[in-house]
Amino acid sequence: MAPGKKGVLERLDAGEVVIGDGGFVFALEKRGYVKAGPWTPEAAAEHPEAVRQLHREFLRAGANVMQTFTFYASDDKLENRGNKLSFTGAQINEAACDLAREVANEGDALVAGGVSQTPSYLSCKSETDVKAIFKKQLDVFIKKDVDFLIAEYFEHVEEAVWAVEVLKETGKPVAASLCIGPEGDMHGVSPGECAVRLVKAGAQIVGINCHFDPMTCVKAVKMMKEGVEKAGLKAHYMVQPLAYHTPDCSCQGFIDLPEFPFGLEPRILTRWDMHKYAREAYNCGIRFIGGCCGFEPYHIRAVAEELAPERGSVPAASEKHGNWGAGLEMHTKPWVRARARRDYWETLKPASGRPLCPSLSVPDGWGVTKGHTDLLQQKEATSQDQLKQLFDRSKTH
Amino acid sequence: MAPGKKGVLERLDAGEVVIGDGGFVFALEKRGYVKAGPWTPEAAAEHPEAVRQLHREFLRAGANVMQTFTFYASDDKLENRGNKLSFTGAQINEAACDLAREVANEGDALVAGGVSQTPSYLSCKSETDVKAIFKKQLDVFIKKDVDFLIAEYFEHVEEAVWAVEVLKETGKPVAASLCIGPEGDMHGVSPGECAVRLVKAGAQIVGINCHFDPMTCVKAVKMMKEGVEKAGLKAHYMVQPLAYHTPDCSCQGFIDLPEFPFGLEPRILTRWDMHKYAREAYNCGIRFIGGCCGFEPYHIRAVAEELAPERGSVPAASEKHGNWGAGLEMHTKPWVRARARRDYWETLKPASGRPLCPSLSVPDGWGVTKGHTDLLQQKEATSQDQLKQLFDRSKTH
Amino acid sequence: MAPGKKGVLERLDAGEVVIGDGGFVFALEKRGYVKAGPWTPEAAAEHPEAVRQLHREFLRAGANVMQTFTFYASDDKLENRGNKLSFTGAQINEAACDLAREVANEGDALVAGGVSQTPSYLSCKSETDVKAIFKKQLDVFIKKDVDFLIAEYFEHVEEAVWAVEVLKETGKPVAASLCIGPEGDMHGVSPGECAVRLVKAGAQIVGINCHFDPMTCVKAVKMMKEGVEKAGLKAHYMVQPLAYHTPDCSCQGFIDLPEFPFGLEPRILTRWDMHKYAREAYNCGIRFIGGCCGFEPYHIRAVAEELAPERGSVPAASEKHGNWGAGLEMHTKPWVRARARRDYWETLKPASGRPLCPSLSVPDGWGVTKGHTDLLQQKEATSQDQLKQLFDRSKTH
Amino acid sequence: MAPGKKGVLERLDAGEVVIGDGGFVFALEKRGYVKAGPWTPEAAAEHPEAVRQLHREFLRAGANVMQTFTFYASDDKLENRGNKLSFTGAQINEAACDLAREVANEGDALVAGGVSQTPSYLSCKSETDVKAIFKKQLDVFIKKDVDFLIAEYFEHVEEAVWAVEVLKETGKPVAASLCIGPEGDMHGVSPGECAVRLVKAGAQIVGINCHFDPMTCVKAVKMMKEGVEKAGLKAHYMVQPLAYHTPDCSCQGFIDLPEFPFGLEPRILTRWDMHKYAREAYNCGIRFIGGCCGFEPYHIRAVAEELAPERGSVPAASEKHGNWGAGLEMHTKPWVRARARRDYWETLKPASGRPLCPSLSVPDGWGVTKGHTDLLQQKEATSQDQLKQLFDRSKTH
Repeated sequence: MAPGKKGVLERLDAGEVVIGDGGFVFALEKRGYVKAGPWTPEAAAEHPEAVRQLHREFLRAGANVMQTFTFYASDDKLENRGNKLSFTGAQINEAACDLAREVANEGDALVAGGVSQTPSYLSCKSETDVKAIFKKQLDVFIKKDVDFLIAEYFEHVEEAVWAVEVLKETGKPVAASLCIGPEGDMHGVSPGECAVRLVKAGAQIVGINCHFDPMTCVKAVKMMKEGVEKAGLKAHYMVQPLAYHTPDCSCQGFIDLPEFPFGLEPRILTRWDMHKYAREAYNCGIRFIGGCCGFEPYHIRAVAEELAPERGSVPAASEKHGNWGAGLEMHTKPWVRARARRDYWETLKPASGRPLCPSLSVPDGWGVTKGHTDLLQQKEATSQDQLKQLFDRSKTH
Repeated sequence: MAPGKKGVLERLDAGEVVIGDGGFVFALEKRGYVKAGPWTPEAAAEHPEAVRQLHREFLRAGANVMQTFTFYASDDKLENRGNKLSFTGAQINEAACDLAREVANEGDALVAGGVSQTPSYLSCKSETDVKAIFKKQLDVFIKKDVDFLIAEYFEHVEEAVWAVEVLKETGKPVAASLCIGPEGDMHGVSPGECAVRLVKAGAQIVGINCHFDPMTCVKAVKMMKEGVEKAGLKAHYMVQPLAYHTPDCSCQGFIDLPEFPFGLEPRILTRWDMHKYAREAYNCGIRFIGGCCGFEPYHIRAVAEELAPERGSVPAASEKHGNWGAGLEMHTKPWVRARARRDYWETLKPASGRPLCPSLSVPDGWGVTKGHTDLLQQKEATSQDQLKQLFDRSKTH
Repeated sequence: MAPGKKGVLERLDAGEVVIGDGGFVFALEKRGYVKAGPWTPEAAAEHPEAVRQLHREFLRAGANVMQTFTFYASDDKLENRGNKLSFTGAQINEAACDLAREVANEGDALVAGGVSQTPSYLSCKSETDVKAIFKKQLDVFIKKDVDFLIAEYFEHVEEAVWAVEVLKETGKPVAASLCIGPEGDMHGVSPGECAVRLVKAGAQIVGINCHFDPMTCVKAVKMMKEGVEKAGLKAHYMVQPLAYHTPDCSCQGFIDLPEFPFGLEPRILTRWDMHKYAREAYNCGIRFIGGCCGFEPYHIRAVAEELAPERGSVPAASEKHGNWGAGLEMHTKPWVRARARRDYWETLKPASGRPLCPSLSVPDGWGVTKGHTDLLQQKEATSQDQLKQLFDRSKTH
Repeated sequence: MAPGKKGVLERLDAGEVVIGDGGFVFALEKRGYVKAGPWTPEAAAEHPEAVRQLHREFLRAGANVMQTFTFYASDDKLENRGNKLSFTGAQINEAACDLAREVANEGDALVAGGVSQTPSYLSCKSETDVKAIFKKQLDVFIKKDVDFLIAEYFEHVEEAVWAVEVLKETGKPVAASLCIGPEGDMHGVSPGECAVRLVKAGAQIVGINCHFDPMTCVKAVKMMKEGVEKAGLKAHYMVQPLAYHTPDCSCQGFIDLPEFPFGLEPRILTRWDMHKYAREAYNCGIRFIGGCCGFEPYHIRAVAEELAPERGSVPAASEKHGNWGAGLEMHTKPWVRARARRDYWETLKPASGRPLCPSLSVPDGWGVTKGHTDLLQQKEATSQDQLKQLFDRSKTH
C-alpha cells in the first residue's frame, strides 16, 4: 500500500464510504477483450493497455478499490475454457495485480485480490482440492502484496466459507460476497445464515455481488445484516450488484433470463437509477458500495456523485459531468437545456423504443433450477413454492 | 497513408465494404472524458490514452476508418462551451490527428479528418465567415496529411455544401453526411435533393449519420441514392446511424426524445439488431457502413461479422466472440449453452425489465421544431402535416 | 317517422350533432347472439329481446340513430354462412326494422336502414347482380318506412357507389360510409376521391366506419372533407370508428391484427379516450358521430357527455354516471373518492396488467394484402412503399 | 326450486361442476343502469328488462346460478348513496328475486340470494345491529324462497362470520365468499384461517370473489382448502374472481389500482385467459366456478366450454361460438380463417395498442392501506414487509 493510505478496514471502521469499481468482464466483452461463455481474464496479460484503461476510468469515476482482474482465473477454470491460452494462470494473475497496483497508485484506491467459485467445487472435488486452487491464486496476491482480499461470486456458501478460510491465513483483511438474492444460496441457506457462517469463518466484510439488480441485492444484504446482528456478531457490509433491471428473475438471477448475456441492453440502469441505488444502500448501513456486470464507469460516477456529501468530494470524472445533468445548460437546443435539472431526470420513465417487446421475461432455466434444488433436497417447501408461484404468475399474464 | 494501403475511393470503386468506427462522443462521455451538453473533444489533448484506446477497440472490431476525434472542434464552438479549456483548438485538432494516425497504422485503416456544423451558421454568419471556420480545422488536417475528409452532422444542407466546397479545395476525397431522416433537412429539403446538391458540390461519398436509428437512416440514404441516380449523377453512399431505437422520433431525431441524452439506455441496440442493420445497408447498395452515437466497439464488430462473407475476413476482436453466440457453448449452465445458436438470438424479443415504463415517448421539442419550420416557411404543407399527425397519433395512444 | 321529429338532413343542415349508435355485431357476440366469423344478424329474428335491449341501451346513452341490425343480411351472405338458419333474409330484415322502430319511438331517434358489402361483388358478379342484392334488402326498408339509408362497411368505393345509386332511387336521405383508412380503398383510391365519387353518386352524408381507431378514422374523414371541398361539392360527414386502439394497423385495418377478433381486449378504448375522440371529430366539422365494432353503450354515452354543451342536454343514462367520474365521490375508500375529477382521468395512462405482452403487433395478413394490391395494379408505388416501410419498421423494433 | 332440480349441495356432493354467473354491477354500469361509486342495484326495480336480459345472457352462457341482483342492497347502504331512490330496499330486493327466479326457470339454474358487507360494520356498529341489517334482506329471500344463500364480498372475516350465522338460521345452504387475496383479510387473518372460521360458523361452501385476477383468487382458495383440511373440516369451494389482470395489486386488490374503476379496459381477460382459469380452478378442486366484476357473458361461456367434458354439455350460447375460434373458418379473409385453431389463441400474447402506457401500475392507496393495518395492529410484520417490498419494488423499475 502506498504510504499514508488508509486500509479498507480503517476506512470502514471510521464510517467512511468505500466505493467499489464496476464489472470488468462485461465491460471488456463489449470492448473486445473478453469472451462471453468462458468469461476468463487473460486480457490482463494479452492486452494490458485495455485493462489499465478500464481501471483508470473507474478510478476517475470515484472508485476506492481496484479489484485485480482475476475473475475465473483459477487454474481449473482456465484449463476448462477450451482453446489454449498463450499465458499461464500465474502470468495472468500477476499481470492483473500489476495493473491494479499501477492505477491504484494514481489515486486514493486500494488493490483487492479476488478469488471466485471454481469448477472443482461443482464437480465435487474435496475441500482440500478446492482450497488448493484458491491457495495457488493467493500465492500471487501475497507476492504482489495486495491490500486486501475478496472472495466473490459464490453461489454456494460452503465453498465461500472454504475460500474465506484460505484467505484468512494471510492475515490480510477479507471480504466475502455471494451471488445470491433474498431466496438464499443454491442449497436454500438464507442470506442471514450465509452471512453468519462467513463472519464466523473470519470475513470482516460480507455482502452480495452480481446476479440481481441493485435494489434486490441491497435487500439481500439487509437480510445478511439482520442475521449477523441477531447472532450477536459484527461485520461491515458490501454490495456490488448488476447494472440491469431484473424484477423477473428467480433464484439464479440474470443467468436464467432469456436475454442473458447478449440481449440485456434494454435493462441497463441509467445513471439516475444509480443515484437511487447508492442512497438506498447507504441508508441500509452498507458502506462498501460498488458494481458488477453491466456497471460502466459512468454508473460508478453516479454512485460517487450521490454520496458526494458523505464523502466530502466529487470524483475526478465529474469535471465532465454536471450534477443532475447541469452540463445540458450548454446544449444548443433550448428544450434540451430545459432538461438540466434534477426533478426532470429523477421522475423520467424512459421508454424502451421497442413496442414489439414485452416488459418482463419468463426465466428460461426455471425447470432446470427446480430440478437442481429438488436433487439437493435442502430448500424449504415454502421457498420452492414461492418460486413456483412467481413463475406461474409470470406465465399467466 | 501507409505505403500499400488503398484509399477510400479505390476501395469503394472496387466494390469493397468500408467499415466505419463508432460514436466517440457518447462512448467517451460514459468513460468520463466528454461532457454532455457542450460535447467537445478536448480529451484528444487532455487524455490521449483514453482516445487512443477507443480508436484501438474500433480497429480491433473491424473498422477501416479512424475518424479524427475533432467533432465540434471548430474554434467558434470551443469558445462557446463555457468553461475555459487548457488547450487551443489547433492543439486539440492536431492531437486528434496524431492519435487516429497512430492507431490506423496498427491495421488496415485510413484516417478521416472531420468537420461538423458550426454555431456560426446558426447565428447567421456569412458564407465567408463559416467557410473560414472550416478552413482553420482543415489546415490541421492538411498538415497532418489525413487520408480523406468527412463533412458530417449537418442539419442544413446549405452549410454542408459550403463545407464540401472548402474541403474539395484540398484535392483529397470528400464525404458528406447529414444528420437528417426521411423528412429531409431542417428547411424541408428532401434527402434526394440534399444528396444531389452535395454531389454537385463535389462530394464523392454522401450519406447520413446520427439522429435516427439504423433502419431509418438506411431508408433516408436509399432516398438519397434514388435522388442522385434520378439526376443522372454518381456517388458512393455511407451510413453511420445511432445505436438507439427511435421509432417515435420526429424530424430532429433523438435530440427531441425526453430520454436524450441521459435516459437512452433501454433503447440501445443489441449486437443482433446490428446484424440486421448491416445486411439491410449492404442490400441497399451502401458500402461505407459505420456508426455514430451509442455505437460501442461490439456494435461495430457485429457489423463486421455480418459482412464477413463479403469482406473475406473477421475482425481481430472476433477472437473474443463466437459467431452468433457460439462462445456460450463453454458456459457452465446447460440452459445457457442451449442459447449458442443463431435462431435463438435472431428471434429473441428482449424484455425491458421496466414494467412501469412505456414503450414509446412523445418527442419533447415538437412545438419548438414546428415553430422553427414555420419560420423558415420552406417546408411543404404535407410534410408538416405528416409530422403533426405522427405527433397527434402518438399523443392519443 | 314519428310526427314532429326532424329528419337527419334537417338536423345536420341546422348544424346539430347527430349521435350514432355502437357496434351491434361485436356487442352481441359477447352477449352470445352473434357468431364471429359469419357475423350475420339472425338474432333480430331469433332473439329479438336481446337486440331490443341493446337498441334501448344505445338510446339511453344518447344515440339519435337506431341502425337496423341488418349488417351482412343480404341473401348472398346469409346463404354463404354455412349452417342453415331458421329464418329467411326478408324475415331477419323485417324483424330488425321493427325492433329499431320500436325503440326509436321511445326517444329522439331516427331509424336508418343499412346495407353493406356483398360476397357477390368480391366474386366478380356484375353491377346488375350486385345492385339486385341491395334492391332486395331495400324493399324491406321501404315497406317498413325507415327514416334514412346507410350504405356502410364498403372496402371498395366502386361497390359503395353502386349501393348509393340503388338507395337514391327511394328518395330517402342516403349516407355512405367506407371501412377504409387514410391509405384509401382496396384499389388505392384516396379518401378524398372516394368521397367525391360518393357525393356525385348522390350521397348526402359521407364518411368512414369500422377498421381503424377513432383518431385514424377522423383523419380519413378529414381527407374526405378536403376532397369534397376541393371539388366544389357539398356534403355532411359521419364517422363511426372502432373502439379499439389500432396504431399498428396497415391498410386493411384491425382484421389484419393477430388479435382479431378474440384477443382485442387490451386495445379497448376507455370512456375518456371517447371524450377526446368526440371533441376531435366535432372540431374537424363532423356532425354525425357514432361508433362501430367494440363500442358499448358507455362509449356512446361518453361521446354524448363530451358534446353535451353543443347538444344542450345529457343522455338519459347519465343519471347513472357522474360527469368525469363524479359518482366516485360516493365511494367508500377515500383514495378512490380522490379520483372523482377530470384531470385524473384525462391524464391517466392505463397499465395493461400484461407485462409479458408487447404494446404493438405486426399485422398478420400483410403479405396477402400486398399480393392483393399488386394484383389489382392500381395502388401507387409510394403508397405500397409506405406500407412496406411501416411493416419493416415494426418488425425491427 | 322447480320440481326435479337438484340443489347446490346435491350437485357439489355429486362432484358436479356448478358454474356461477358474472359481474352484474360492472356489466350494468357499462350498459347504463348502475352508477359507479355507490354501485347500488336499484336497476332491479327501475329497469327490470335490463337486469332480466343480463340474467338470460349468463344463463345462455352456461351459468347454473342466478344470483339475485341485491349487491349493496342493504338499507344502510341504500340510504348512504346520496340521491334518493324511487324504490325501497324491500322493493329492490323483491324485484331482484323475481327476475332471478324468472330466468332460472328458463334453464338449469338455481337462485341464490346474496348479502354483502355493510357500512354499519365499518362504522363500528354492534354485532346485533349488523346482523339486523342482514336479517332484513334475508326476510325477502325467505319470502321469495331462493334456493340457497351467499354471503359475499366481505373484506373482514368477522363480519362474514356474522352474516353466515344469520343466514344459517334459515336452514338453506349457505356459501361464504371473501374479497381477499393470499395476504388474507384486512386484519391480516390468513385465507386458511378465514375459511376455518366460516366453515365453523356453518358455511357449506367457502371461497373468494372479486378484488383479484383469476389465478390469484384460485391460489387464495387453495390456501383456504389447505386450512380447512388441516383443521380436519370439510367444505365445498367456490371462486368468482375479477375478469381483469391484477399482477400489480397489493392487499386491497383492484380498488387500489389507479385505473379503478374507469380505466381498467386494457386489463380485461380474453376468453382464452378464461379457459386457463377454469382449468386451474378445476384442478385445484374448486367446483363452484364463476365470475365477478368484469365478467361478461362470453367469459362465463368460455368457462363452460373449457369444462364441457366434465359437465357433459356445452352451453346454449355456444351455438354462436365455435370451439377455440372454429367459427372463423367462415371468415371472408383467408388469413383470418387460418386463426381458427386452438394453439393460435392459446399462445397469442395480445398487444395493448397503447405504446405510451406502462404494463404495471403502482397501487394508489398503499399508504392508506398501510396506515389502516398499522392502526389495527393485527397484521404480522412479515406480511407488512412483503407488501412494502412489493411496493418498493414496483416503484423502482
